[in-house]
Amino acid sequence: ETTVTATLFPGDGIGPEIAVSVKEIFKAAQVPIEWEEHFVGKTVDPRTGSFLTWESMESVRRNGIGLKGPMATPIGKGHKSLNLTLRKELGLYANVRPCLSIPGYKTRYDNVDLVTIRENTEGEYSGLEHQVVKGVVESLKIITRQASLRVAEYAFHYAQTHGRKRVSAIHKANIMKKTDGLFLQCCREVAEKYPDILYEEVIIDNCCMMLVKNPSLFDVLCMPNLYGDIISDLCAGLIGGLGLTPSGNIGDNGLALMEAVHGTAPDIAGKNMANPTALLLSSVMMLQHLNMNDKADLIHKAILQTIAEGKYLTGDLGGKAGTTDYTKAVIDNLGSS
Amino acid sequence: ETTVTATLFPGDGIGPEIAVSVKEIFKAAQVPIEWEEHFVGKTVDPRTGSFLTWESMESVRRNGIGLKGPMATPIGKGHKSLNLTLRKELGLYANVRPCLSIPGYKTRYDNVDLVTIRENTEGEYSGLEHQVVKGVVESLKIITRQASLRVAEYAFHYAQTHGRKRVSAIHKANIMKKTDGLFLQCCREVAEKYPDILYEEVIIDNCCMMLVKNPSLFDVLCMPNLYGDIISDLCAGLIGGLGLTPSGNIGDNGLALMEAVHGTAPDIAGKNMANPTALLLSSVMMLQHLNMNDKADLIHKAILQTIAEGKYLTGDLGGKAGTTDYTKAVIDNLGSS
Ligand SMILES: CC(C)[C@H](C(=O)O)[C@@H](O)C(=O)O
Ligand SMILES: CC(C)[C@H](C(=O)O)[C@@H](O)C(=O)O
Repeated sequence: ETTVTATLFPGDGIGPEIAVSVKEIFKAAQVPIEWEEHFVGKTVDPRTGSFLTWESMESVRRNGIGLKGPMATPIGKGHKSLNLTLRKELGLYANVRPCLSIPGYKTRYDNVDLVTIRENTEGEYSGLEHQVVKGVVESLKIITRQASLRVAEYAFHYAQTHGRKRVSAIHKANIMKKTDGLFLQCCREVAEKYPDILYEEVIIDNCCMMLVKNPSLFDVLCMPNLYGDIISDLCAGLIGGLGLTPSGNIGDNGLALMEAVHGTAPDIAGKNMANPTALLLSSVMMLQHLNMNDKADLIHKAILQTIAEGKYLTGDLGGKAGTTDYTKAVIDNLGSS
Repeated sequence: ETTVTATLFPGDGIGPEIAVSVKEIFKAAQVPIEWEEHFVGKTVDPRTGSFLTWESMESVRRNGIGLKGPMATPIGKGHKSLNLTLRKELGLYANVRPCLSIPGYKTRYDNVDLVTIRENTEGEYSGLEHQVVKGVVESLKIITRQASLRVAEYAFHYAQTHGRKRVSAIHKANIMKKTDGLFLQCCREVAEKYPDILYEEVIIDNCCMMLVKNPSLFDVLCMPNLYGDIISDLCAGLIGGLGLTPSGNIGDNGLALMEAVHGTAPDIAGKNMANPTALLLSSVMMLQHLNMNDKADLIHKAILQTIAEGKYLTGDLGGKAGTTDYTKAVIDNLGSS
């Protein structure tokens, strides 16, 4: 196997600790990946006065693959989220979040198994807002044919290559007839090219109600930016929260930046208390994306086994173990099942 | 007691049957209400060619109080939802949905007790959309100081008069800094006038995650139009769905139109299969709004007892009873506890 170079952004707060966990587990599992680490985040680069260096973004572009911990939004007015800036600058147009129940971690829901695919570049995130007159402000939601087709294409292709049966387009086209209407029309066009994948359209309010009543009604959900933001968090809640869900941002030519989407948890940073699961599962997604499926399975199973055993869980999962104990347990479980 | 005249819109589909249920129960409970019925809905008025008659809206305005079943949106392009048209024409600026677990109707969640209060007139429902160039459409979200203050004021006043402890403003102001930012600013201003009510701000994605993990974290939620649409359905899902949740639309000078927000269910219309609970609970809200609290309690208890007994439930609740059986059971339970 040839070694692949991947960019690593440990990020802020607990980011560095959970990145260490990934690195150690990858080493123990003999994953042929070499990391190119960039310490970007809320700390300004002293040379450039910038939060994100040009080199860090070039690194992802060059390697085509990266893994990212949480980044804090710099303090002070008018700073944009670095997480969003990265998605935008790198043209990462689809946000993918598989949401799978974790055996042994009990929630109100069993056997959740769905994937949210979110348009990641436009919609309500256009950033276009202004005051019309005093006391009246407006923001623009932009939907384009190009971005909608692109994410719909990604969703159906994902469904097909991942053995999924159905794609549900989530919308509010009964109210936003033109914007969400265009999104739906693009989904329909793409659906025609995938006759083997069931296609349905579900209004967002109804979708949220059905998700909390019976998440097994869904398989792959494809939607505009804000609905994806909302529904992916809702789905994460079904299986335990953002600390347990991986995420990937996908761009052209296979460019991918996998990401733990929880916060930086500054209160527990540096205290060996952080739960590295979301970043670990994101790193598994990264290996799958790279077609290193054996390594992905090996690590995935060891993570699940560690959680199912329940002996070395971090505080947020109801245990008392440190990040390092958990990491060691995962390493001990590599290949043991 | 003086008799109050209230407008009744049975609506379409199952609307007339469930309205009969309300009327019979009110009669049996000797509620001093006289109904002024208007059969508006998807059927065009032959005199005017209109779906909503002027008299029907005047009736609500004159009586100051009304109850409404589901209405179907007329078929054909470009028709607006009649439900929305009524809210808009009557200036019903706040949508209130108490969401309370129903003892005896089991869901994954126990003891849910929260209230969503939704801005009902603007935001993403502005109806302002257009195509910028081919393949690029935009819709406008409008937030005004006036409407935001008004709904915030309603939410805090509601909290205070209903023994509630906390108001959470739900937003995405980290992205829509100006629109949702203005909404939050208005909520903050109003919060200062209610020092006894706790005030907090929660980002919508996080709110949805917390709601499915632990709804008891919330009490009163106040939010812009679309977020309210989404979250009120999510909350309804927690306790069993729209068939079990009441809703009220509130305007100036106490004007109120209570409403069952489920669909018209044309497939079971006229078959004595419809579940009248949402309209019944909405009628209880109506009585509370009219300060007829004894009658409200009497009917509310009889509904809950009927559901808890479980003998006369409609199909959607897992039973085999008809609408009329259920209605009779509620009547039999009036004052029996
Ligand atoms: C941090 C925030 C700007 C971001 C978003 O809104 O996309 C987050 O909620 C997410 O889902 O990754
Ligand atoms: C029917 C639809 C237009 C309506 C809305 O979006 O407000 C409904 O979902 C509701 O919540 O009452």
